[in-house]
Amino acid sequence: MIYGTDYYPEHWPEDRWPEDLRLMREASINTIRIAEFMWSVIEPSEGHFDFTLLDKIIGMASSAGMNIVLCTPTAAPPKWLMDLHPDIYQTDGSGKTRGFGSRRHYCFNSVVFKEYSRKIIKEMAVRYSGNKNVIAWQLDNEFGCHDTVRCYCHNCSTAFSKWLESKYGSIAALNEKLGMSFWGQHYPSFESVVLPADTVCDNKAAGMHAHNPGLFLDYCRFASDSVFDYAVFQINELRKYGVNVPITHNFMGSFYDLDYYKLAEPFEFISWDCYPNIAHGPFSSLSEVSYNHDKVRGYRNDKYWVMEQCSGQNGWNYMHETPRPGEIRLWAYQSVAHGADGLVYFRWRPALFGTEQYWHGILDHDGVPRQRYDEIKQTGKELEAISEIVTGSRITSDVCILNSFDNTWSHAYQKHSENFDYNRILYTIHNSITSLNINCDVRAMCPDLAAYRLVVMPAYNISSEEEASLLASYVSGGGCLAITFRSGNRDLYNKINGLVLPGYFRELCGIDVINYDAAGSSVRPVSGITGSLNANTWCDIINGKDSTVLAEYTGGFYSGTPCITVNNFGKGKVYYIGFNTDMPSYSKIFDYISEKAGVRRTPLRPVPGVETVFRTASGSDCIFVMNHNETPVIVPLDRAYTDAISKDRLGECLRLEPFGVAVIY
Amino acid sequence: MIYGTDYYPEHWPEDRWPEDLRLMREASINTIRIAEFMWSVIEPSEGHFDFTLLDKIIGMASSAGMNIVLCTPTAAPPKWLMDLHPDIYQTDGSGKTRGFGSRRHYCFNSVVFKEYSRKIIKEMAVRYSGNKNVIAWQLDNEFGCHDTVRCYCHNCSTAFSKWLESKYGSIAALNEKLGMSFWGQHYPSFESVVLPADTVCDNKAAGMHAHNPGLFLDYCRFASDSVFDYAVFQINELRKYGVNVPITHNFMGSFYDLDYYKLAEPFEFISWDCYPNIAHGPFSSLSEVSYNHDKVRGYRNDKYWVMEQCSGQNGWNYMHETPRPGEIRLWAYQSVAHGADGLVYFRWRPALFGTEQYWHGILDHDGVPRQRYDEIKQTGKELEAISEIVTGSRITSDVCILNSFDNTWSHAYQKHSENFDYNRILYTIHNSITSLNINCDVRAMCPDLAAYRLVVMPAYNISSEEEASLLASYVSGGGCLAITFRSGNRDLYNKINGLVLPGYFRELCGIDVINYDAAGSSVRPVSGITGSLNANTWCDIINGKDSTVLAEYTGGFYSGTPCITVNNFGKGKVYYIGFNTDMPSYSKIFDYISEKAGVRRTPLRPVPGVETVFRTASGSDCIFVMNHNETPVIVPLDRAYTDAISKDRLGECLRLEPFGVAVIY
Amino acid sequence: MIYGTDYYPEHWPEDRWPEDLRLMREASINTIRIAEFMWSVIEPSEGHFDFTLLDKIIGMASSAGMNIVLCTPTAAPPKWLMDLHPDIYQTDGSGKTRGFGSRRHYCFNSVVFKEYSRKIIKEMAVRYSGNKNVIAWQLDNEFGCHDTVRCYCHNCSTAFSKWLESKYGSIAALNEKLGMSFWGQHYPSFESVVLPADTVCDNKAAGMHAHNPGLFLDYCRFASDSVFDYAVFQINELRKYGVNVPITHNFMGSFYDLDYYKLAEPFEFISWDCYPNIAHGPFSSLSEVSYNHDKVRGYRNDKYWVMEQCSGQNGWNYMHETPRPGEIRLWAYQSVAHGADGLVYFRWRPALFGTEQYWHGILDHDGVPRQRYDEIKQTGKELEAISEIVTGSRITSDVCILNSFDNTWSHAYQKHSENFDYNRILYTIHNSITSLNINCDVRAMCPDLAAYRLVVMPAYNISSEEEASLLASYVSGGGCLAITFRSGNRDLYNKINGLVLPGYFRELCGIDVINYDAAGSSVRPVSGITGSLNANTWCDIINGKDSTVLAEYTGGFYSGTPCITVNNFGKGKVYYIGFNTDMPSYSKIFDYISEKAGVRRTPLRPVPGVETVFRTASGSDCIFVMNHNETPVIVPLDRAYTDAISKDRLGECLRLEPFGVAVIY
Repeated sequence: MIYGTDYYPEHWPEDRWPEDLRLMREASINTIRIAEFMWSVIEPSEGHFDFTLLDKIIGMASSAGMNIVLCTPTAAPPKWLMDLHPDIYQTDGSGKTRGFGSRRHYCFNSVVFKEYSRKIIKEMAVRYSGNKNVIAWQLDNEFGCHDTVRCYCHNCSTAFSKWLESKYGSIAALNEKLGMSFWGQHYPSFESVVLPADTVCDNKAAGMHAHNPGLFLDYCRFASDSVFDYAVFQINELRKYGVNVPITHNFMGSFYDLDYYKLAEPFEFISWDCYPNIAHGPFSSLSEVSYNHDKVRGYRNDKYWVMEQCSGQNGWNYMHETPRPGEIRLWAYQSVAHGADGLVYFRWRPALFGTEQYWHGILDHDGVPRQRYDEIKQTGKELEAISEIVTGSRITSDVCILNSFDNTWSHAYQKHSENFDYNRILYTIHNSITSLNINCDVRAMCPDLAAYRLVVMPAYNISSEEEASLLASYVSGGGCLAITFRSGNRDLYNKINGLVLPGYFRELCGIDVINYDAAGSSVRPVSGITGSLNANTWCDIINGKDSTVLAEYTGGFYSGTPCITVNNFGKGKVYYIGFNTDMPSYSKIFDYISEKAGVRRTPLRPVPGVETVFRTASGSDCIFVMNHNETPVIVPLDRAYTDAISKDRLGECLRLEPFGVAVIY
Repeated sequence: MIYGTDYYPEHWPEDRWPEDLRLMREASINTIRIAEFMWSVIEPSEGHFDFTLLDKIIGMASSAGMNIVLCTPTAAPPKWLMDLHPDIYQTDGSGKTRGFGSRRHYCFNSVVFKEYSRKIIKEMAVRYSGNKNVIAWQLDNEFGCHDTVRCYCHNCSTAFSKWLESKYGSIAALNEKLGMSFWGQHYPSFESVVLPADTVCDNKAAGMHAHNPGLFLDYCRFASDSVFDYAVFQINELRKYGVNVPITHNFMGSFYDLDYYKLAEPFEFISWDCYPNIAHGPFSSLSEVSYNHDKVRGYRNDKYWVMEQCSGQNGWNYMHETPRPGEIRLWAYQSVAHGADGLVYFRWRPALFGTEQYWHGILDHDGVPRQRYDEIKQTGKELEAISEIVTGSRITSDVCILNSFDNTWSHAYQKHSENFDYNRILYTIHNSITSLNINCDVRAMCPDLAAYRLVVMPAYNISSEEEASLLASYVSGGGCLAITFRSGNRDLYNKINGLVLPGYFRELCGIDVINYDAAGSSVRPVSGITGSLNANTWCDIINGKDSTVLAEYTGGFYSGTPCITVNNFGKGKVYYIGFNTDMPSYSKIFDYISEKAGVRRTPLRPVPGVETVFRTASGSDCIFVMNHNETPVIVPLDRAYTDAISKDRLGECLRLEPFGVAVIY
Repeated sequence: MIYGTDYYPEHWPEDRWPEDLRLMREASINTIRIAEFMWSVIEPSEGHFDFTLLDKIIGMASSAGMNIVLCTPTAAPPKWLMDLHPDIYQTDGSGKTRGFGSRRHYCFNSVVFKEYSRKIIKEMAVRYSGNKNVIAWQLDNEFGCHDTVRCYCHNCSTAFSKWLESKYGSIAALNEKLGMSFWGQHYPSFESVVLPADTVCDNKAAGMHAHNPGLFLDYCRFASDSVFDYAVFQINELRKYGVNVPITHNFMGSFYDLDYYKLAEPFEFISWDCYPNIAHGPFSSLSEVSYNHDKVRGYRNDKYWVMEQCSGQNGWNYMHETPRPGEIRLWAYQSVAHGADGLVYFRWRPALFGTEQYWHGILDHDGVPRQRYDEIKQTGKELEAISEIVTGSRITSDVCILNSFDNTWSHAYQKHSENFDYNRILYTIHNSITSLNINCDVRAMCPDLAAYRLVVMPAYNISSEEEASLLASYVSGGGCLAITFRSGNRDLYNKINGLVLPGYFRELCGIDVINYDAAGSSVRPVSGITGSLNANTWCDIINGKDSTVLAEYTGGFYSGTPCITVNNFGKGKVYYIGFNTDMPSYSKIFDYISEKAGVRRTPLRPVPGVETVFRTASGSDCIFVMNHNETPVIVPLDRAYTDAISKDRLGECLRLEPFGVAVIY
């Protein structure tokens, strides 16, 4: 297994490198990631390449038997380049050029920048593609972070016009499909179409923006495609000059500006940067990080790496909470449990200068190995010991939540009600299911749903007849589908389709939605098979027709009308959930539905704050049990197990220390 | 009576129009408003006019016997025009051009834009002025909405210089009148005078702005005048080309950037857009909407239309609360009660595309008539049935609150104390009076006050000797006047006049204000003829001299000093209220004062959440009784009445359903 | 003693001046400050000087025997100048020119502006340097207020490049010293170095900024130096043309953008503007204003003036709280107690126009002397009566808190934990000490610490070996030093020094800091010699080694580890305080430490809300006792005293009215 760390030789004197490598090896670290911000070191002035430093560290690390992940250094174009071509800078939505002084200051649609990228990528590929220790390449770093997917410069304006022309063919088609008759916004030509930046009607304080929603959605797709195109360009260049090892990129967890399903395709594997300790509340390392792991796994429906695994407190202008002893190990196990087969800690040692001085590494600023080093070293040894169990098993889920970037963007622009948050709804539902000790996938709509016993489709607003057909054949064949409020009402142009709701899914659900209540932060009482709940944010008012009513509203002007229904369709069933609710209430609902759908659960009884993931092997299965509580817990066992780490035989129960973990089989 | 709806034929296929018109007629709808955003349809490219669509809908609607309100489409200049003349765009206070993508993107001082406006207005006027079904024209749409009264472009800069020159004659006069010796801001010429946009000292987060307050007030007047001039220009053009039916414009309720008293003058009647369900708290449909109705009626002191009467949930990026069954009918009655003799619902059917997809109409997105349609249909039938009573009676008020845009602007710029809000003070006082079942006018200062038994003048900061004379003759003749804190201290240049307070009104009040306490959110106890109250926001410290003290402060360092006084002046009385307070406390104060002044009230006893408006007829009077509660109420009656809608004879009481209404006589 | 007021003759008719001067003299006012915004009056157009008004007022005031403080009027360059040279305007961090309409709109690095400054300064100096009543000159007005120290215009860009070149010599040195290898930010030349304005990564809402912290610190120093250079330039010009009386400038209290220690040097004395009633909570006039007085006294370690002493309610767009009777007198005594030997009230009478209409003076807008005038008159008489006691004594402190602008700027940019506020920490510690009735100095690091029994060095992040040596010799000689968390970890380039913490001070403290917890708003329990406390914001985790542990954490994952230690070093002691806490808790800690260090206290027992300052005289000492409560208090006395104001003999106790004061000896 890959067990690595990010390393910045350019930050440290060369005579420290051997000691660093020695300490790494002692901690079972076998891989370093390097060079993602090294452009100004490698090409200190135009066309003058200097590989002295990079050659040295690659040589020294190779001699030490380390694997190397080598990065293209395009995330930080050097100052001499920006001075020569200021046109490369991004422009923000207010028309302001976003200047020098940090990173990611380039526009993805700059032709000039692509040319300079090509040159340095070629030099690096030619030089290092033959090195056997270079086991993978990473493109750039965190495409899109710091709000850099969406640029409003004139390069982007031109590119967007072309993108639209290629999509719509004629400007009349664009005007018609996007509904430009509203407020008389007909565009006379593709060249005249604006990037949807700030307008006279925008009121950011009130969350109001005024652009045509269809144009905004196309712009989101265009901006995402611009990054995709740039990534494919880099991959092609690397391949052209001899790189034949896997190429990857480090994605982000709670990031929504890129269509990660599309971006994941051209890579051999993807990775992501996982920081459980940034701005989270209690148990969020359990729930939100767990959700992100499952979501990232779904981008390619495959194993992945964590390219930046948290190794200490972090932050730019101030530090977030210090990981408590045991948490760094816990988070590493959590990554592995959810499907990571590569862990690269960020970072080896915190920088003494620059923006990220407070972003801690395995060592401290003084270079001394202390508690964090020891914990990571221990974890490395353990993972070596259980590697057979990990590599021999894989995650299988009976439940799949359907996710969509078109919906993310559409919901973000017009969020239905004041507190409506599409990604929070998905996260809450995921959390409500996994807290029942159920494995859960998160994926895009696809033809291979038959493997799942339950498919959950929350707020699937943007949709098509084709998608409705996919689901119909899934359910007809015996599948169980749960659809929620705000599904089926928009077409692919972000227009309301004008159908009786839930639109394309109306026949599947067997109901009509005849009105709705944008509840905001108010709560509305609900009663039914799941007991009493409180709806919030959104309530559909439903004519249940021939469906079976499982719950109804018990207050307000629509008291007594249905809010959860189930409809038999072919060999399967379709549940309709007409309202949003909180995590515990969703858990009650999905406890009921998953039970009916025959969804498999971990044999262990749920314990608050304890996460379980079960993995299936050809021989026997294993279970990762992870205590996110800062107190010890006793987990009751249904049978005798073996603890893979300690090799202990376990009887009636498993005791876990604060932040303790066990892999049992 | 006009009972109409807004209609956008450009959003729907032509073959749907007949069905829409049929459904309208069935619901007693007799009027449609059209074309306010149709410029790009009518003139798809420069000088090329295409009236096909407009001819068709006007023809079809005329055949169906519908009245038509035709709009000049200038609220949304088309993209081809903006591309030809980008100079038309507005510029905001930070110097940013406010781009394309919404509406109202034009500057009122653009000469080029006026020329293009002239051409399309002429074409429309020539074509449709002869159509008998076109019963009125509306100019543009909601002048000034989205913060578009105040533009900071170079056209405005030039126009402002001319406006100032015409007002002051010489730059020396401007420097002297506005006090430019403060911080040595003498302007060398009219050309050099800046638009009061952002400066080095502004701190928006802290609500601080630094410009000379007199210059700011002049700028507010200038910006308002620019809109006025543009409106007059449009009216003149329409008249020139044959329009001889009434011309109107749709005003807004809680909007303060335009001097609506001045703007109302050139129209035959005015209208406003009334949305009781946007961002209101409990009973706000009772209080704030009621205030806005009375305020709008006062702009011309005449009947008016509601040009956009709420027909469903609305919002741009998210929906506000769904109207509960009965509320749409209630709000319609409320409009009629306060003086509307035209109701036009916005809108017929929500758009499937564009910014306002969530702005609901009488129908749903799917075009199906449901509960809202039925409610509006019922309301239409009822209003037909009682039309004689409505048209035969009119509102008469014994109380008038004096309102002023100069004061609105002056108070907004320098708000005295942290929570001081002039418009909220007026609204609170209005609410405190009408909750006593007293009809109340809201008007600008005028010579015909003698008709009122009580005139209330809150926080009349900007004032003149002429106004003091008007009031003196009103009171001398037997009138009753109530003046509050922060009156009489500034002249028409927004300067403090340097008089002993309350300045021009000192003799009337018979007191001296010798200090004051900017109380902010603190409360100060008060006791007197109205019992115990809590002052907030502002407390004058008063030397009562020869006036009679009705209440005094009972805490703080000015405990024991007067805070409400009354002074005999001629045949009348002048009350001085030295502090701000909350609605219930104001109600106690005005209960006392209106009783003393002999103000007429509805004979019904006040019931919380139940609004009454009484109307006077030549024969007998009638009373609108409106229940804003979501529970039924019993209203005690002082005598037997007839219910005009149900024709029932009413005995000791009137029962109203949730959101129920009755018109009794 | 100087007892004065600001006066604006340009705001009032000339025939009012004699009355104003008469009223002043009656109130013991002997000084006026004039002309700081008079440029447009003195030079109404380029090169045309008109001293008529200034000659008149100086003449009239001189005849009346008044002292005059004459200001250079550069704080408000006139409009004609800005129109001729718009290049003078400042530019903000977003690239926006900060326009005309307020004051301080000039860039300190504008060469053109310096030339125009030179001309008017010369004219004034030549004309008035011989006037005997002009006893002092003030430069400009409140350098830097309204965020004007830091400008981002091209003049500044050029000047910054030169400043850096002069500091670093070569661009390679800059890149190396500041760590530009981070994110590959190597600058190719000094010309290419950016001003650290907004970048692509900034997220102001989240308090994130991305520039290299070393570059930011240099920019702060450069911007501060630019103001310093401009001040020195003005002083030199005044001297060149004959001014030989003291020159001063009015500093601000809670202002942090200028290195006031450096700026104080070239003046004969400094002054500051003291407004206890702006935005303060309970007792803040006691604590925060008291802190500012001690801090300002430390800028030169000398007596000072209050150039703007609060004379009434104030504010721009709204008024803050009205001073209660007695408060204006109390605040005047507080100024004198802490070392002011000049008090100039701001202002004589509030302007009737302009931005500061609400900034009240001694008189009211109507020019009538009322309660505030009487109070100030009384205070003047009293101060005359006790002048011998005041001038004969001086403040001596046994405790000194070390303050540093490098640390202010470094902490502000990277504040360690979410609620970390360097200046608040200093203020809290100062308050905790003075509330024990201990006199306290606040000064920059200096070689003459030996006079203090206790030196407190909070969060001394940026530090050097030289500073460590100074402290080592102070402690070796028998001094007592208290160092807190976040000290010793950064070098003068704002880089982390990479030493084992507390870095340069490790030997002094005898401990190792092995980790830390950025606690934010969480609290962590602590127990020890000071009883039970709650740590917040920051907790060091300590290896106490050979030091003596005085307190330890009693909760969390580092429970049982030391948090207050003491180490013997030479003849002295070094305390290390590893956590931040609240004021009462700090007071417990410093009660213990100051007791051990033998720090002298006022002999009076502390009473809540009562401030005491003791002053040492050659004869006997005196004590200022000031009641900041709005209720009377009884202060127990340790012996018999004389009340210097009333001349009463005091027995067992002293009774003070609300806001009452006494000077006893």
